[in-house]
Amino acid sequence: MNLTGKMLIGGQAVAGSRKAIQAIDPATGKLLEPAYPGGTGEQVEQACALAWAAFDRYRETSLSVRARFLETIADEIEALGDELVERAMAESGLPRARIQGERGRTCGQLRTFARTVRAGEWLDVRVDSAQPERQPLPRADLRQRHVPLGPVAVFGASNFPLAFSVAGGDTASALAAGCPVIVKAHGAHPGTSELVGQAVARAVAKCELPEGVFSLLFGSGREVGIALVSDPRIKAVGFTGSRSGGIALCQAAQARPEPIPVYAEMSSINPVFLFPAALQARAEALAQGFVASLTQGAGQFCTNPGLVIALQGPELDRFIAAAADGVQRSSAQTMLTPGIFDAYQTGVGALAGHARPVAAGLSAEGPNQCQPRLFTTTARDFLANLALQAEVFGAASLIVQCADGEEIRQVAEHLEGQLTATLHLDDGDLHAARTLLPTLERKAGRLLVNGWPTGVEVCDAMVHGGPFPATSDVRSTSVGTAAIQRFLRPVCYQDFPDSLLPAALQHGNPLQLRRLLDGQREA
Amino acid sequence: MNLTGKMLIGGQAVAGSRKAIQAIDPATGKLLEPAYPGGTGEQVEQACALAWAAFDRYRETSLSVRARFLETIADEIEALGDELVERAMAESGLPRARIQGERGRTCGQLRTFARTVRAGEWLDVRVDSAQPERQPLPRADLRQRHVPLGPVAVFGASNFPLAFSVAGGDTASALAAGCPVIVKAHGAHPGTSELVGQAVARAVAKCELPEGVFSLLFGSGREVGIALVSDPRIKAVGFTGSRSGGIALCQAAQARPEPIPVYAEMSSINPVFLFPAALQARAEALAQGFVASLTQGAGQFCTNPGLVIALQGPELDRFIAAAADGVQRSSAQTMLTPGIFDAYQTGVGALAGHARPVAAGLSAEGPNQCQPRLFTTTARDFLANLALQAEVFGAASLIVQCADGEEIRQVAEHLEGQLTATLHLDDGDLHAARTLLPTLERKAGRLLVNGWPTGVEVCDAMVHGGPFPATSDVRSTSVGTAAIQRFLRPVCYQDFPDSLLPAALQHGNPLQLRRLLDGQREA
Repeated sequence: MNLTGKMLIGGQAVAGSRKAIQAIDPATGKLLEPAYPGGTGEQVEQACALAWAAFDRYRETSLSVRARFLETIADEIEALGDELVERAMAESGLPRARIQGERGRTCGQLRTFARTVRAGEWLDVRVDSAQPERQPLPRADLRQRHVPLGPVAVFGASNFPLAFSVAGGDTASALAAGCPVIVKAHGAHPGTSELVGQAVARAVAKCELPEGVFSLLFGSGREVGIALVSDPRIKAVGFTGSRSGGIALCQAAQARPEPIPVYAEMSSINPVFLFPAALQARAEALAQGFVASLTQGAGQFCTNPGLVIALQGPELDRFIAAAADGVQRSSAQTMLTPGIFDAYQTGVGALAGHARPVAAGLSAEGPNQCQPRLFTTTARDFLANLALQAEVFGAASLIVQCADGEEIRQVAEHLEGQLTATLHLDDGDLHAARTLLPTLERKAGRLLVNGWPTGVEVCDAMVHGGPFPATSDVRSTSVGTAAIQRFLRPVCYQDFPDSLLPAALQHGNPLQLRRLLDGQREA
Repeated sequence: MNLTGKMLIGGQAVAGSRKAIQAIDPATGKLLEPAYPGGTGEQVEQACALAWAAFDRYRETSLSVRARFLETIADEIEALGDELVERAMAESGLPRARIQGERGRTCGQLRTFARTVRAGEWLDVRVDSAQPERQPLPRADLRQRHVPLGPVAVFGASNFPLAFSVAGGDTASALAAGCPVIVKAHGAHPGTSELVGQAVARAVAKCELPEGVFSLLFGSGREVGIALVSDPRIKAVGFTGSRSGGIALCQAAQARPEPIPVYAEMSSINPVFLFPAALQARAEALAQGFVASLTQGAGQFCTNPGLVIALQGPELDRFIAAAADGVQRSSAQTMLTPGIFDAYQTGVGALAGHARPVAAGLSAEGPNQCQPRLFTTTARDFLANLALQAEVFGAASLIVQCADGEEIRQVAEHLEGQLTATLHLDDGDLHAARTLLPTLERKAGRLLVNGWPTGVEVCDAMVHGGPFPATSDVRSTSVGTAAIQRFLRPVCYQDFPDSLLPAALQHGNPLQLRRLLDGQREA
């Protein structure tokens, strides 16, 4: 298969005519062919028109047809074989095992959403039967289901070229909900995006769905991205990326005549609290686990542990010494893009201006090499300086030394919203942990005990979300099956004849859903 | 009991010191004692500080304690007896039967949410068990529940002095979710607000809850309202009122360092589609039902039928003649406030400038008398003039005469978002109705067949919501038990020891919830 440098507008490969994006192999700094000219405003329009035309039919596909579509996308991605793996490696600098694992997650995610679609709980069917004899007024027959919001704009993430890109979590959950998707590809991996986009388009064709169910655009966020979010036919947005990028999309969405929801996953430093008994029992082992989580994938995870909080004292000193030792032994790793590398260097420089550097990893030849970094500061300084909470995307972390439990509480309360918060504890720490929990529940979407925040399971119970600025919408998750709920809205049908009702709401319950029927959940 | 003219900040009656609001009996134009001085910025602060202090304890109250609290509020409102009814009548101009009915709905609503709280489905508990042996990586134990967002600001509505005011739907659903509530009372019914506020405060005390669970403030929307929405401790907003008021609150919420959700129910003209066979069979009966729905409560309902759409021709002419006759025989009714009356007169004047007046109701002596009005226009004019879609709050409606089915479809597609859309049809109309349904599902939160949109049932299946500008958040309903979901967010607990888990998530399932356990719904 040859990469064409073209977008996919519906089923058609179409060349853009604006400034081209071109991938760079971050390990060598070399440009990768082909170039991808950016889409025009007219091409954004065309993709939106096709998505809109496809919406009414796609949203009423049966549960089995829609599930089969998701599974077909997974099959088609797997059928791309090694070409996809090698292109993703070249465009991201990520090693083969990681890309293969991410491909597995991406396809597994699509199949998990297929199961969720078939189970049908997301329809949230509620029936209140008519009570014609009720006094003083009869009650009508009222039936509720959930319907999809409409076409969704998805912005590919830099750090998951497969699992949070063209056919990643946002796309899978929006398609599962019944929403056509228009992806604005991330400029760092256009070739990977084109390959996966072709796989999705093949699945659309094989499943005989309207072509507008999926389009793939290239171009700049400022032009193509804002045009997409501003189009009246787009009804929701999924984004994973920087805080400034997410906020810009939120503002564009709010400035529309009809504002729409934006699910932007933006910025988190993922505080880790080390409690005294745990530190005393295993400071060195904790340091080892910490460094492994910190440096995994050059630290380029939304859930990277960028902040450690503990009581000062000899146990914490042991942890710091062991962590410093681990960091110093850590190899440099190629970062995803020159832009991310530059931002890491800037962020590390800013940390160095406010906190005490205690360790740096091994240096390496070649471009875009992320050297892990470790800093310490005091609770007092941390509380006085909001800049110490800025996310540094990459393998850098800051240890906050607290004088007492009250300072730990203050640091916790002072935190911005987070994707995760982690507690390392032993039996002797349970009381202190219990005291801190209410604060952490207000601050983060996922709380962990005795683990590390990197590694996000795709399952029913996962929450990859959290208060602003971790995300722009605390009511949601972008990973796991509950992500489907982001793209749905309730509709109530009053006194409809059975023949006009959608299947999910018909009296005979042909989909065999467990409805909430007259206040009782059906068995 | 004497009205004091004071606010309730936690359990304390506190006098404001800013410009006072004072109710007017709209039937006489006379001021009602006492005056209610507006709250200061400092008093807003105090209420927010108390709500914040109460949050961590209130949100972890057991399901039964929280349910009992909602029931106690209902009991305390009923215990106010006739004093409440008479004050609400005087402040609203609404008749006794309506106020008594609304009190019944208000208390019923609180008790319905108590049942919802006890059932616990809103916790949406999901458990994915640990799989320590899984390859290539073990799976952690992951458990999800929903937790409340935080303190909620509720803005009382003018048109439901009980059911959507101090202890109305927004307050009931927020308290049910576990959120403390600060109400900014509507200026039209401060005495009613004070009485109900005292009832809520008594329930807080009787249930031994922290006093900050509830506060009641008076003052202007621009000052007290915006200060409240801008306070960092407020985490969500419930509002029912004008489009301009709702948009102002949305903008204030978006301008915060941490933006928060605003659930504003704003503007809807509730299109009614009359299909040919139905019109032919019963044009006069439809007209009678229409006029009854239009003029009920002086048309002061969010779901008032402000737009009728049908094919031109002799059947529609019969409907128009009968509706005109009905309107002409309709008595004038006292509107809620002089401001609402003025806006009605202005709105009717604007309609008269763009559409053909066909009937006006009986006039009456005295202030603030709403004379029902009926207008007609053509589809072509309607499509050309967005002003014809502006909500006129009161008993005014516009009939759009369409040349063919395609014009009906165009009118439907041209509509802004709506709370409701209604279809009157007979068997012969089913095909045409089916063709229109996809459009109407995109436009409205509730679809009705052969009924009238006024009269909103409080039940599980109700959706009182819809696309912008009907509401600011299409993903939600403000009436019915699903309203609790507006004030919740998911949190995931990873590898927690049982003793640290909230009861809802403990391994023994002590709350006996039907969890989503390893992908299967428990029986």
